[in-house]
Amino acid sequence: MGTVPLLGDEEAAPEARAVFDDIRAKRGTDYVNNFWRALAHDPAHLKEVWDRVQGVMGPGAIDPLVKEMIYIAVSTANGCAYCVHSHTAAAKGKGLTPEMHGELLQVIGMAMRTNGLVTALGVEVDEAFKA
Amino acid sequence: MGTVPLLGDEEAAPEARAVFDDIRAKRGTDYVNNFWRALAHDPAHLKEVWDRVQGVMGPGAIDPLVKEMIYIAVSTANGCAYCVHSHTAAAKGKGLTPEMHGELLQVIGMAMRTNGLVTALGVEVDEAFKA
Amino acid sequence: MGTVPLLGDEEAAPEARAVFDDIRAKRGTDYVNNFWRALAHDPAHLKEVWDRVQGVMGPGAIDPLVKEMIYIAVSTANGCAYCVHSHTAAAKGKGLTPEMHGELLQVIGMAMRTNGLVTALGVEVDEAFKA
Amino acid sequence: MGTVPLLGDEEAAPEARAVFDDIRAKRGTDYVNNFWRALAHDPAHLKEVWDRVQGVMGPGAIDPLVKEMIYIAVSTANGCAYCVHSHTAAAKGKGLTPEMHGELLQVIGMAMRTNGLVTALGVEVDEAFKA
Amino acid sequence: MGTVPLLGDEEAAPEARAVFDDIRAKRGTDYVNNFWRALAHDPAHLKEVWDRVQGVMGPGAIDPLVKEMIYIAVSTANGCAYCVHSHTAAAKGKGLTPEMHGELLQVIGMAMRTNGLVTALGVEVDEAFKA
Amino acid sequence: MGTVPLLGDEEAAPEARAVFDDIRAKRGTDYVNNFWRALAHDPAHLKEVWDRVQGVMGPGAIDPLVKEMIYIAVSTANGCAYCVHSHTAAAKGKGLTPEMHGELLQVIGMAMRTNGLVTALGVEVDEAFKA
Repeated sequence: MGTVPLLGDEEAAPEARAVFDDIRAKRGTDYVNNFWRALAHDPAHLKEVWDRVQGVMGPGAIDPLVKEMIYIAVSTANGCAYCVHSHTAAAKGKGLTPEMHGELLQVIGMAMRTNGLVTALGVEVDEAFKA
Repeated sequence: MGTVPLLGDEEAAPEARAVFDDIRAKRGTDYVNNFWRALAHDPAHLKEVWDRVQGVMGPGAIDPLVKEMIYIAVSTANGCAYCVHSHTAAAKGKGLTPEMHGELLQVIGMAMRTNGLVTALGVEVDEAFKA
Repeated sequence: MGTVPLLGDEEAAPEARAVFDDIRAKRGTDYVNNFWRALAHDPAHLKEVWDRVQGVMGPGAIDPLVKEMIYIAVSTANGCAYCVHSHTAAAKGKGLTPEMHGELLQVIGMAMRTNGLVTALGVEVDEAFKA
Repeated sequence: MGTVPLLGDEEAAPEARAVFDDIRAKRGTDYVNNFWRALAHDPAHLKEVWDRVQGVMGPGAIDPLVKEMIYIAVSTANGCAYCVHSHTAAAKGKGLTPEMHGELLQVIGMAMRTNGLVTALGVEVDEAFKA
Repeated sequence: MGTVPLLGDEEAAPEARAVFDDIRAKRGTDYVNNFWRALAHDPAHLKEVWDRVQGVMGPGAIDPLVKEMIYIAVSTANGCAYCVHSHTAAAKGKGLTPEMHGELLQVIGMAMRTNGLVTALGVEVDEAFKA
Repeated sequence: MGTVPLLGDEEAAPEARAVFDDIRAKRGTDYVNNFWRALAHDPAHLKEVWDRVQGVMGPGAIDPLVKEMIYIAVSTANGCAYCVHSHTAAAKGKGLTPEMHGELLQVIGMAMRTNGLVTALGVEVDEAFKA
């Protein structure tokens, strides 16, 4: 698959190569995953996404592990297999236990199900739910 | 809207009415929201969903407030306005602060964005991400 | 709502007006619903969709009522409230009973749920399922 | 792929193994497909889904083959390749002919198309369609 | 609707108010649409999205009107009625003619349709299409 | 993958074979891609889609390359990997440069992101945006 080739370190432009190096340094690994190598054809875009993802997914009012679970939930509903795999791996790295993974799946399944029921029933939003 | 009429207490079958009463008791409110009144045309289905939602969304390895955020994430990606409204209200009732809501939105936006990038690039799942 | 105005009979071009008249004749009603009035800005497109929908949704190897249920299922998963409403009305006109509607909802809910579980688990297609 | 390993019979917990055996008995085959082996990490969830799917997909007001077509329709709109494959195989096992499959595809294509047109046009639901 | 209240000029924080003023200045209108007023609860997020949208949607290798059509296409497939409305209005402001709008709808309908056919058929990507 | 086998030239019915030949002639290549070979089980459907796609995707008020970008945008949001690959190849054949591809990805990412924000915020359509 791939609509563009994945760029190796030697093929990437210097600005892209600098992002690869930053990914390696921040993650403490030599491995740069496919998403970044595909995005590297547009080094400015690559850098913008990498900078933004660090800002958004880091600690804050919501715990980083919880953010990964939210990411998995969105990616599942959008049917993005790559994103589900990469963020499940990230979540495990941040402490996702099998019990948590099991409950995450139950919540996703429940939400998918009632999303369908609500839409098929055409239920209108209760006034009580409007801010 | 609505592909079926919402059932009032008097119109609902006894089994459905019993679920309405259980919703009131468990939630400590007299209000039964539209989803349950639409689903009440099929009392067995209504009861099954209500029972299941309590089992899934209660305390466990994942905190109930986190579960609500996951629910919102799935519902957003599926474009279910009703579900987004009802579960955002539920999340606020369980302690969602404006700061948390703001970060939830940032994570959802980030995930939606990279879901699109990954799919448009046709990125293949890295071997490293496969269990 | 609406990104284009709905066209009344007097505002529509003659080719669009002819489709409106054909809709009335085929359905035995004077009412032309909003979808056709919005699509009428492009009379050739209007005619093509109207002709095609009659060919696809009529009797064949699959019963017309079953086709309406399939249409509702797709429209639900795509979150198209208009389509869910119009095709649920059409299904009722073709004999959808409350029992059938209830089971349709159960199947939709089940499919939505397992779609989510399968995607979150990243399950690969069994060789046995490939044609 | 896979965010969790598929569990073989020996790796699965006794409660999960019991579900595998029930799947085999009910279906009259020795084969247990990947979905169940992935879900088996959470035996209670596995059992709940298996029990529910039997209740929902069995005979009732809607024919089991029609239910499979509805399942395929939802799974297609959600982009769940696994679900499309497994339920197309199930539908064939319940009598789906090539002619029916061809018409199913035509209805799905028609619904997808008008879902897009309706949303891009922002068509409001006709009062006549509201229950 | 709304999971948060829309913020008026007086209710918004100074940083958010500054973005409102920039929107007015750049667009040459006094009107600030609902999206920005909802996002204003998180002024830094508001500013980041407003800055980014200007950078992405401005002139470049792709014409700004074409970018609006691409935006409408994504928003339609995601079922985001608000986004379809706001970007169709923007496209009209940038020169979208009724003929172009008509063709845009035809392409969206065609893509939705074949997306469904391809997924229901489970078609594998041709080697020839891989970069 | 595949819910039906791909039909080779010898296996296809004469009407389907005629479409294959027309694809070859119009495209000036001997290669017939998998989508058409899967659709060929229903020759009338195959011919209708092929005829329609030529009418819709050809020159008109919108440039054919722009139409391909719109097609990619819809297919990305729907998560159709096959469609993304085939239409990115088609776009490259019609002149898509790496700079245009990069900007296309940026617009898709921006639209996905704000689609999520708008839905999670439950923003109502401004009166100003309604036709």
